Amino acid sequence: MNMVHPSVHPIEAPPFTDGGAGVPPNRSWMKDVQGMPGTPGGLALRFSQFVFALTSLSIMASTTDFIDASAFRYLVAAVALQSLWSLSLAIVDIYALLVQRCLRNSPLISFFTIGDGITSTLTFAAACASAGITVLLGNDLRACKDNNCRSFQTATAMAFISWFAASPSFILNFWSLASR
Amino acid sequence: MNMVHPSVHPIEAPPFTDGGAGVPPNRSWMKDVQGMPGTPGGLALRFSQFVFALTSLSIMASTTDFIDASAFRYLVAAVALQSLWSLSLAIVDIYALLVQRCLRNSPLISFFTIGDGITSTLTFAAACASAGITVLLGNDLRACKDNNCRSFQTATAMAFISWFAASPSFILNFWSLASR
Repeated sequence: MNMVHPSVHPIEAPPFTDGGAGVPPNRSWMKDVQGMPGTPGGLALRFSQFVFALTSLSIMASTTDFIDASAFRYLVAAVALQSLWSLSLAIVDIYALLVQRCLRNSPLISFFTIGDGITSTLTFAAACASAGITVLLGNDLRACKDNNCRSFQTATAMAFISWFAASPSFILNFWSLASR
Repeated sequence: MNMVHPSVHPIEAPPFTDGGAGVPPNRSWMKDVQGMPGTPGGLALRFSQFVFALTSLSIMASTTDFIDASAFRYLVAAVALQSLWSLSLAIVDIYALLVQRCLRNSPLISFFTIGDGITSTLTFAAACASAGITVLLGNDLRACKDNNCRSFQTATAMAFISWFAASPSFILNFWSLASR
């Protein structure tokens, strides 16, 4: 029986691309942008979004009369959603950092972008609506004696800071999605 | 004296690229996306942003007591800026359509993106702040007898529609900038 004995030529192993879902070589600089999912910067952003949203929620919910204004009730709902979303993505980031896993594949980035877009828009809208009422009470009507203006202002400011921390996550994800 | 007489071979002319500032061939599908600067869709978006911002401005400015609330004054300023910006870009779009000029070079798209981002964020913030006060007056305090609730609501709704028309311009410009 004739058998072919192939000689073995060592060849270079192809680079590891995480199941074909890796970043194409010409876009590899996006890997190093801090703030993207799965980077320490991204985790820091998620953590600050979560902390400021939770602070805003706690301060607003601790006032007795937030229930009287629809905008304040909406702020509580929006920052609750923002804190849940940011906490979930912080956990995903911690997992990705621990197992050195790349989170930059297209469906995942699309999901992050849409989620960030929705939650940050809701948080910003709620913060603006609350700011409108807070300024009306404090500056226009000068009715701070009968209202917890200080708490309303602090909760609104925290919601704005949470939105401010959420925007880079959205912009970086959207940029990364568009530049594929 | 020896001279080389080169024979003339007809070669294909390179495609016209508008002074080197054209869209690279692999991105040429972006040319046809309606809503980009210099397209009829883009002009329609600018025109609707302008019309709704101007309507919001006129309705709010026609009320006698908008001056009492900071948020309503801010709405007037924000939709005035939005209408000026949209009108300017509508004129640029008309010029580009008339002379068949491509507006998609990087510095111009960056300028459009930043301008759209700023004006649409300001319009959205003003609309949300006005909505907060309008809902407070109409639903929470039931004080519509003494206030022009109908006008405030209509002006706020027009500002939201103007923002809604401004968002696709921003998203398409940002996408086009990132995908270069």
